[in-house]
Amino acid sequence: MLIWLWGIYQTKKGQVRKMFFYMPTKVYSEEQCVKRHGSELAALGEKALLVTGRHSARSNGSLKDVEEALESNGTGYILFDEIEENPSMETIMRARDLGIVQGADFVVGIGGGSPMDAAKAIALMMRHPDQDMDYLYQKGVDSSACPVVEIPTTCGTGSEVTPYAILTIHAKRTKSSISHKIYPSLALADPGYLKFAPESVLQSTAIDALGHFLESYLNSNATDYSRMLVRGGMRIWSKFRDVLDRKRELIEEDYQEMLNAATLGGMAITHTGTSLPHGLSYYVTYEEKVAHGKAVGIFLPGYLKAADSQTSRELLELIGFQEIEEFRAYIGRVLGEVMMPEELRAQAVRGLLENAEKLKNCPFSVDERALREIIEYSLD
Amino acid sequence: MLIWLWGIYQTKKGQVRKMFFYMPTKVYSEEQCVKRHGSELAALGEKALLVTGRHSARSNGSLKDVEEALESNGTGYILFDEIEENPSMETIMRARDLGIVQGADFVVGIGGGSPMDAAKAIALMMRHPDQDMDYLYQKGVDSSACPVVEIPTTCGTGSEVTPYAILTIHAKRTKSSISHKIYPSLALADPGYLKFAPESVLQSTAIDALGHFLESYLNSNATDYSRMLVRGGMRIWSKFRDVLDRKRELIEEDYQEMLNAATLGGMAITHTGTSLPHGLSYYVTYEEKVAHGKAVGIFLPGYLKAADSQTSRELLELIGFQEIEEFRAYIGRVLGEVMMPEELRAQAVRGLLENAEKLKNCPFSVDERALREIIEYSLD
Ligand SMILES: [Fe+2]
Ligand SMILES: [Fe+2]
Repeated sequence: MLIWLWGIYQTKKGQVRKMFFYMPTKVYSEEQCVKRHGSELAALGEKALLVTGRHSARSNGSLKDVEEALESNGTGYILFDEIEENPSMETIMRARDLGIVQGADFVVGIGGGSPMDAAKAIALMMRHPDQDMDYLYQKGVDSSACPVVEIPTTCGTGSEVTPYAILTIHAKRTKSSISHKIYPSLALADPGYLKFAPESVLQSTAIDALGHFLESYLNSNATDYSRMLVRGGMRIWSKFRDVLDRKRELIEEDYQEMLNAATLGGMAITHTGTSLPHGLSYYVTYEEKVAHGKAVGIFLPGYLKAADSQTSRELLELIGFQEIEEFRAYIGRVLGEVMMPEELRAQAVRGLLENAEKLKNCPFSVDERALREIIEYSLD
Repeated sequence: MLIWLWGIYQTKKGQVRKMFFYMPTKVYSEEQCVKRHGSELAALGEKALLVTGRHSARSNGSLKDVEEALESNGTGYILFDEIEENPSMETIMRARDLGIVQGADFVVGIGGGSPMDAAKAIALMMRHPDQDMDYLYQKGVDSSACPVVEIPTTCGTGSEVTPYAILTIHAKRTKSSISHKIYPSLALADPGYLKFAPESVLQSTAIDALGHFLESYLNSNATDYSRMLVRGGMRIWSKFRDVLDRKRELIEEDYQEMLNAATLGGMAITHTGTSLPHGLSYYVTYEEKVAHGKAVGIFLPGYLKAADSQTSRELLELIGFQEIEEFRAYIGRVLGEVMMPEELRAQAVRGLLENAEKLKNCPFSVDERALREIIEYSLD
């Protein structure tokens, strides 16, 4: 009620309510969609640079599907399969050089967030062959890029529809999104690939998607549009919630729901950005090698607790929890424990207090103590 | 429950659940957005063809805002202000010729559905200068078009985000969408323009938006994506529902809600198309000169009644009605009575039974008798 009055008050004061919607990626989400829409994939250029990691794109069949789709439509390709988890700027540049030497004119990212994010950064650098890797984080410069196609094989990042590309910056011992927004042209999301993902990957990436919902809804940039995406996504997410902590068996239909929830999470953060849990997670992933979704998820209870508003209660209700404690226990069951040494806590808090963007996205103000409390409630 | 089981059954049978999302228009929806985002508007070309009707774009200030935005960014323009309600193919060709002679390279539609739809058709024909007007309804030919910007000044059509352009075909005594999908590049939706719209226009266009929600949700092409757009839109729509039948006074904030609801309705039908009420409405508009929203709205109670499913009860609940009778009475209060002579009923039923596309969009099968019942329940 107070929040509502404050909303009215704001409008009355003559502040403009800004509403923005932009989601240009064409999304096909269905079994065998790479094959079904292969001609659209192949039509994006003359020669594709396929970007993926060493293993999973081979074992789940996605790489073979892409190769066959391109071949049967007479489009050439070249493979770069050396994207590591949390790819570095150096890896981007190696792939870029291969793409240029081989005459590729579009990029296909296949896999989880790492290859999909890398594909965007590579597509940017391929369009700017004279620039060095500093260009990735330069502001106010041309962001044009080669067309990008994304083929997700996990169910969290939503990178197939976001304009973000999060890379590891060794110099800063953390991760950060490049300064350019690169929207994929096409996303081909086949739930069949998820069948090959280990349970821990499904768990961690599905919790990443949950983080996208919570951080987008509890966000100073939230609008009716972005919250619609969150509500739509959480409606789907809550259907497979009990699979993640093994309260029920996974069934065939869950894969499609998991994939769609992730895509909707991506659409939501495209409009708002993420906030504190993602900001904190990057330190944990860098120093402790904790998977992204797990590193995000551990901070979600603390983030909701810190907000402690009507909004966070609404959110809990949307995924079927009565109490924040119940939610904290659920996250613990799904993700297990994570250690965060005191030194790392101090580093993360310090880093986040200097991260103007993540702080700006948070709808309540935080200081060192508040950040400490978020970490402590979440982990201890 | 039965519907749910049937859904599972379908999947079990190996049918693929197709999910598709594509909404490439960049939408700014806020006060004074034409001015605020004038540089993005002006950057779409060298010279704009402004497309509007004779009066309202002048009286509500939208035309002046566009002219000033273009001038201050050094982009030229030429005005075609002769779009009639329910524009004809002949009008499209006259505007196209003006655009070509004057060297325009993008099109700005300003107003309600008529100028916004016309802008898309004109942008198509400008890119195909050697073609005659038959091209508008030719299938399987190149659909490339000049960039289109849409500036809505009513709150129903959603044409600012749809790829549809519905024109009057005098030879067939009805209206129909052209065979090409032309997505606007940019939509600038300023709720301030709605303040100049007569109450009857707000009522009729807001009911058009409701028609888009109901016909998109009760649609054989509905997916989780499209239904999310409907739920998000109806959530907003229900906030100003009572303004339309004068149960409460209109307040400033309603304009923004009305505009956003309309845009979401447009996004929803972009993914599903419309169905029977829109199909029937075109005859009533052509023969009886009834405004589009009113001509659609009168058939909505009959459409829900014919569906008579769990889904139609869900929909009623989403906009706060317990009973279909209550909804029928509400529509009557907002729109008043509409006469539909027996001859016109026969013509509309005959026409619709031949309209494969609208019939295919309807999730239940209809014959002559069912269509008759929809008309009778709605009007008698
Ligand atoms: Fe994430
Ligand atoms: Fe309509």
